[in-house]
Amino acid sequence: MAASRTLRIGLIPGDGIGKEVIPAGRRILESLPASLGLKFSFVDLEAGFETFQKTGVALPDRTVETLQKECDGALFGAVSSPTTPTKGYSSPIVALRKKLDLYANVRPVKSVAGTRAFPDPIDLVIVRENTEDLYVKEERTYEQDGDIVAEAIKRITRSASSRIATMAGEIALRRAKIRAVEKSTSTEQQKQAMVTITHKSNVLSQTDGLFRKTCFDTLAQPRFASANLKVEEQIVDSMLYKLFIQPAYYDVVVGPNLYGDLLSDAAAALVASLGLVPSANVGDGFALGEPCHGSAPDIAGLGISNPIATIRSVGLMLEFLGQGEAAARVYQAVDGCLLEGRLLTPDLGGKAGTEEVVGDVVRRL
Amino acid sequence: MAASRTLRIGLIPGDGIGKEVIPAGRRILESLPASLGLKFSFVDLEAGFETFQKTGVALPDRTVETLQKECDGALFGAVSSPTTPTKGYSSPIVALRKKLDLYANVRPVKSVAGTRAFPDPIDLVIVRENTEDLYVKEERTYEQDGDIVAEAIKRITRSASSRIATMAGEIALRRAKIRAVEKSTSTEQQKQAMVTITHKSNVLSQTDGLFRKTCFDTLAQPRFASANLKVEEQIVDSMLYKLFIQPAYYDVVVGPNLYGDLLSDAAAALVASLGLVPSANVGDGFALGEPCHGSAPDIAGLGISNPIATIRSVGLMLEFLGQGEAAARVYQAVDGCLLEGRLLTPDLGGKAGTEEVVGDVVRRL
Ligand SMILES: CC(C)[C@H](C(=O)O)[C@@H](O)C(=O)O
Ligand SMILES: CC(C)[C@H](C(=O)O)[C@@H](O)C(=O)O
Repeated sequence: MAASRTLRIGLIPGDGIGKEVIPAGRRILESLPASLGLKFSFVDLEAGFETFQKTGVALPDRTVETLQKECDGALFGAVSSPTTPTKGYSSPIVALRKKLDLYANVRPVKSVAGTRAFPDPIDLVIVRENTEDLYVKEERTYEQDGDIVAEAIKRITRSASSRIATMAGEIALRRAKIRAVEKSTSTEQQKQAMVTITHKSNVLSQTDGLFRKTCFDTLAQPRFASANLKVEEQIVDSMLYKLFIQPAYYDVVVGPNLYGDLLSDAAAALVASLGLVPSANVGDGFALGEPCHGSAPDIAGLGISNPIATIRSVGLMLEFLGQGEAAARVYQAVDGCLLEGRLLTPDLGGKAGTEEVVGDVVRRL
Repeated sequence: MAASRTLRIGLIPGDGIGKEVIPAGRRILESLPASLGLKFSFVDLEAGFETFQKTGVALPDRTVETLQKECDGALFGAVSSPTTPTKGYSSPIVALRKKLDLYANVRPVKSVAGTRAFPDPIDLVIVRENTEDLYVKEERTYEQDGDIVAEAIKRITRSASSRIATMAGEIALRRAKIRAVEKSTSTEQQKQAMVTITHKSNVLSQTDGLFRKTCFDTLAQPRFASANLKVEEQIVDSMLYKLFIQPAYYDVVVGPNLYGDLLSDAAAALVASLGLVPSANVGDGFALGEPCHGSAPDIAGLGISNPIATIRSVGLMLEFLGQGEAAARVYQAVDGCLLEGRLLTPDLGGKAGTEEVVGDVVRRL
């Protein structure tokens, strides 16, 4: 145990299909080849709407403390947020991101032949600021002239905008490096590293204006400029449109919290299914993998949920914990499974169950 | 002149291709068959970034006053908002919506064979609240612990939510009536009138919670319930995803200002081009037609901008001014042009110029 590195991983299945995909993620970690020299230990943790109904708390202190004190990383499934505002209930994933200061939400959207809804090859990453914007959840309600008025604060800070821009820039450069290695034998033209800053500063000149300017300033620093990083901007409504009109064009897209949330769900449609799209909530020295899909109560318990988003989130988590080689193994195994296209879950038009897909990926690791 | 009705229309081309499409809109109005008994008079009005650069004001008082005092309706082209916040400049269309209390922004997205990016027939309307949300533009910036913090207010009121829900419900019922007439001879199953309420109340329980609840309450009134209106809800991130996964499913989608802005641009990608998507900014007794596209500086002056979004906006304006028959003529002429597919602008893969498309639509009126 002393020779190889042991990573302690918190497992938070949450609700619905979270309970099916998180065990799948654990199996992937346990099945990584021994040659990588990685060991894992696990701790089961609670959060979610079921937890709230049982205990009155959606995110127990024990979950937060265990993650903070014991864990290197974590996997989070999904939670069923009630759409009817429920007294005392508040989304545990939003709280977790803030409590652990997981300031970046990294959401790669990549198409693999045979699964994609769009004909173009898509390989982009949405880097979403994860701690502020409307997600500060400072709201108030009052009466005025017989009307009811509710207000929420959208808060943007220079510090948070700067660190998310730095993260976006670093990811763009890292991706360019990986592309260069992978394609070193190919004659194909390399895509240049690029960050697209998305905002709505034509309406929100101060808040989104601050985000926009801070991102440009940050990405103009010598470390990025000298690496030939291209920096563009796109107003968020046009961004959503162009995402569908020219998806192959984009590399890294950085945005404030809410736009990032919306862009990543929209981008999932580009690659046919939310069941394919992973995310990592990343802080300094901690990464929490989380599939972008929800708890899908309609298919929970049927054993047909797509484990790919979670498996890719395992890869992302490993990547941000500095285990690039292990991550690459995971990604390649998933791509192999999708490329062969023999074992696909129903969201991708196939007939396979969760277990079969996991088994197939494990064989390819 | 006393026998037939004369409608006075303000023309606000704005910047860029706004100057090409607004004259096209005027020509359509002038070319409507005399048998409809409608006459039009026009007044040219200024607004936009060019106006701002010339006069220091983006929306001159004269424009607002003329619209208020003299006009029945108006056509607005597009403005080039500078993305770099520019002192003293503020979007004239956002201001106009508020000053004239054009509280609903109605954006139909309809596919016509041959032009659509998606195989499904799409026929939905996004009904966007047009006066509040983050568009109140109440922002402030301050320093705190060496950081810069900017805040914006997102404001939702019960009154505005209720009237936009009413508008959405009415539009859904009107559409169902039109479908019933058009398809009375067909055996095809009629789509039921439906409103999908979109929000993010799982995070913004007070603001979006108020919007959500008010919409449900409003649409539960006997006038809607007895007409068998179906009411559903969809969290806005899922809404964006589902819009692409099952676009044919949706009928009327109602949302707060910002989500409506984003959804309508995304939906434009469903039908291949923003150049096809119209909108009407509607208040009590006034309608302002506005293509959803921007000023497109890259193609301004080339004579190749797609006039269809503006021509359809002319139809919408007429519809909301109570001229349903004239509106139907405009829509049919546009559909005829698109169905034939001989004269299409480059955004739709064709080679025709703006003038040719306008000429073709005029011939079909
Ligand atoms: C469940 C919800 C609070 C969450 C969010 O809005 O961040 C989800 O949509 C996501 O993207 O992880
Ligand atoms: C130009 C801009 C201020 C405007 C908006 O955000 O409303 C535009 O995107 C629109 O949808 O009409």
